Amino acid sequence: MSHPRTVAVVVGSLRKDSVSRKTAKALAALTPGLKFRFVEIGDLPHFDQDLEGDPPAAWVRFRKEVDAADAVLFVTPEFNRSVPGVLKNAIDVGSRPYGASVWNGKPGAVISVSPGAIGGFGANHHLRQSLVFLNVPLLSQEAYIGGAYTLFDEAGELVNDGTAEFLRGYGQAFVAWIERILADEPIRKAA
Amino acid sequence: MSHPRTVAVVVGSLRKDSVSRKTAKALAALTPGLKFRFVEIGDLPHFDQDLEGDPPAAWVRFRKEVDAADAVLFVTPEFNRSVPGVLKNAIDVGSRPYGASVWNGKPGAVISVSPGAIGGFGANHHLRQSLVFLNVPLLSQEAYIGGAYTLFDEAGELVNDGTAEFLRGYGQAFVAWIERILADEPIRKAA
Amino acid sequence: MSHPRTVAVVVGSLRKDSVSRKTAKALAALTPGLKFRFVEIGDLPHFDQDLEGDPPAAWVRFRKEVDAADAVLFVTPEFNRSVPGVLKNAIDVGSRPYGASVWNGKPGAVISVSPGAIGGFGANHHLRQSLVFLNVPLLSQEAYIGGAYTLFDEAGELVNDGTAEFLRGYGQAFVAWIERILADEPIRKAA
Amino acid sequence: MSHPRTVAVVVGSLRKDSVSRKTAKALAALTPGLKFRFVEIGDLPHFDQDLEGDPPAAWVRFRKEVDAADAVLFVTPEFNRSVPGVLKNAIDVGSRPYGASVWNGKPGAVISVSPGAIGGFGANHHLRQSLVFLNVPLLSQEAYIGGAYTLFDEAGELVNDGTAEFLRGYGQAFVAWIERILADEPIRKAA
Repeated sequence: MSHPRTVAVVVGSLRKDSVSRKTAKALAALTPGLKFRFVEIGDLPHFDQDLEGDPPAAWVRFRKEVDAADAVLFVTPEFNRSVPGVLKNAIDVGSRPYGASVWNGKPGAVISVSPGAIGGFGANHHLRQSLVFLNVPLLSQEAYIGGAYTLFDEAGELVNDGTAEFLRGYGQAFVAWIERILADEPIRKAA
Repeated sequence: MSHPRTVAVVVGSLRKDSVSRKTAKALAALTPGLKFRFVEIGDLPHFDQDLEGDPPAAWVRFRKEVDAADAVLFVTPEFNRSVPGVLKNAIDVGSRPYGASVWNGKPGAVISVSPGAIGGFGANHHLRQSLVFLNVPLLSQEAYIGGAYTLFDEAGELVNDGTAEFLRGYGQAFVAWIERILADEPIRKAA
Repeated sequence: MSHPRTVAVVVGSLRKDSVSRKTAKALAALTPGLKFRFVEIGDLPHFDQDLEGDPPAAWVRFRKEVDAADAVLFVTPEFNRSVPGVLKNAIDVGSRPYGASVWNGKPGAVISVSPGAIGGFGANHHLRQSLVFLNVPLLSQEAYIGGAYTLFDEAGELVNDGTAEFLRGYGQAFVAWIERILADEPIRKAA
Repeated sequence: MSHPRTVAVVVGSLRKDSVSRKTAKALAALTPGLKFRFVEIGDLPHFDQDLEGDPPAAWVRFRKEVDAADAVLFVTPEFNRSVPGVLKNAIDVGSRPYGASVWNGKPGAVISVSPGAIGGFGANHHLRQSLVFLNVPLLSQEAYIGGAYTLFDEAGELVNDGTAEFLRGYGQAFVAWIERILADEPIRKAA
């Protein structure tokens, strides 16, 4: 496609060696039909309604980057059976001020990633509950990536064939989902 | 009681005029059998595993303050049908490093507060899911404070009799719950 | 439209005077663009895998009725902060046998109804968690009908204008959602 | 102990070869300090408020059996990312009529069991949300039994040492939890 849709990618972990980030990168590499833009969240001050009149520069930057995309992808670990605080804060920042949420109406997808067996189930579904409220039509297909420390080589490349196949199919489903939701809408030029 | 138990109070909203904070203060005033210490969370850098080797001073301060208390109380608004990012981050910070969680075993209680009718249900139960994992035995009694903007006067004092009565009973139940859970444990001297 | 889409309506309460059922009927009356078929669940034996080889007649009937519809609508009270057992059983029955779920791919919507203020939040989101798994693309728009005992007259007619307006808009959004999800699919002839 | 506490055991699966039931039996065998009574739920008519005036005999029987126990244990599979309908119905039946819930105040524990890796996480936490409302103080310790088809021999005996060790510890923790919650209460004589 000459003008692929753009996807704002939000990764729920800040550490450099994050397997969530590696998973997001692998998905991007396996999904040529979309243009993925990673949006950083580590510098976002905690949401505080008292700051809304004169919002921090990082909030403005973040909102602009998400707003410019056609769709959103969340790839996240689970912290304490729920969404990492840093990711939830990014969602809160993007949802404000009232009536100007940058999430509104964008098709989305959620992938949770964990080193253990449960695959971030708690983070995955808590995130979905927020995204229903924010009117982000989510790809129904569930994606739990467990045993994540075994999936990448030292260079951070995905080396597990089953996971690659899963992500390739997931990316195709996401492409189709975005087209279905946005059908009549022109393609945005992401910032 | 000459030596009341201490409770670390964590408020999920940063704004100065927070009704969650006012609710927490009202509960404290109505519960003489406990000593409430408000623990601030607005200055906690986002959790990042890469910082664990040399943790930020605010993390160390926060962990120490929670650790020094006998029990924990969460009073929080709902942001986007879930726990505010800033509060979830505090929970994440307190839970680490692995094996040294300051939440472990402390009796706790959760109150959600909202201006609307639903009373923060989503935040309340998402928080509980994390606290089960963190081994915080929670007072079963639910507490949803709705219509919160109508409950306080301009000085921030609780002026609703029904809510006052509810909070007084809730405080008594919390005192009893703490004693039940900690039964044989000596009283800590909160920092 | 000469051939409107059909919607299988599943009501989560069995009592005759159910406000969930009244709400579903009011929505149907306010949404001429869809054909609503109420599917009964009160006679479904509890799901039991041992019965799958020779399924009870009521299971067969229920699966057939849901399968024949283009879309699904759930209108339900909350029982004990979650989905009523009788409704969850219907979902379980419809999801089996493995690989033959009648829910798969059908666009859906969830409305929760309660006499109190919270509006069935717990039932609403627990139901959504199951429906994600079952690949039912759900209308993002939330619908919590609170104070439900005050909305209908003795004949069961909706007499609250605000709720009527809400349901009319909700019905229109559901029509659009169904068309978006099913776009290229022919209209089914419901049983 | 000469007079051990009794525990009403509710299993969320009806099939004869249920691994949830086997897990419950294994826990019972490994926990001599408690007396486990299995309470059947397969014959309970769906809850229907219209039947409350003249409740079905099975409802009466079930309520009596749960009421007679000191504590409650739930061992359940996950159906469609949530609690099986048949189990949720039992909870609904036990919670009624209003003001006469048989669950109220009983210490409890939740174990979820699944053939797959995720271990019934969704069922586990949805069940907890109901039990908070019903004032069942729950053992905080999480119990997810995954890969359940590999744990038992043909006679239904637990043959996995790690799981046995886990269940033994869990049983001990449950004994201690029951004593903590019921401290001053006399031991009931289960029906």
